[in-house]
Amino acid sequence: MSQPIQPVLPLAPVERVIRKAGADRVSESAGIELAKVLEDYGIEISREAITLAKHAHRTTVKDEDIRLAVARLKKS
Amino acid sequence: MSQPIQPVLPLAPVERVIRKAGADRVSESAGIELAKVLEDYGIEISREAITLAKHAHRTTVKDEDIRLAVARLKKS
Repeated sequence: MSQPIQPVLPLAPVERVIRKAGADRVSESAGIELAKVLEDYGIEISREAITLAKHAHRTTVKDEDIRLAVARLKKS
Repeated sequence: MSQPIQPVLPLAPVERVIRKAGADRVSESAGIELAKVLEDYGIEISREAITLAKHAHRTTVKDEDIRLAVARLKKS
């Protein structure tokens, strides 16, 4: 469950993020690796956000849940 | 420059990440917020990876640069 078989984030936009940071050339493996890292971090944030939404008696995850989740994960 | 005007990561796959974490309902603002957070983290990792690639006398960013960048950022 922790290792995604099918990456959810598409490769082309993730490679664009690396180029936006200033890279001239990006290997495909670098894009795949960053996509995995961002997906794992996204799942971690989302799990915390879901807990926070439930705590507020909501079934919809909102931007305020994501923001508080990120702030809490940065502290830990 | 630190606030991206046009988000690089598309919304639909980012919303899928939140659903993969177990959310039933996701507001559009939550997807936009998470896309921003992941892009910012992706840029931070990529900048470190570019520095590490240059240090290894390479112009191509490889998966090993991304991995070492993530490990270094986790320590700081």
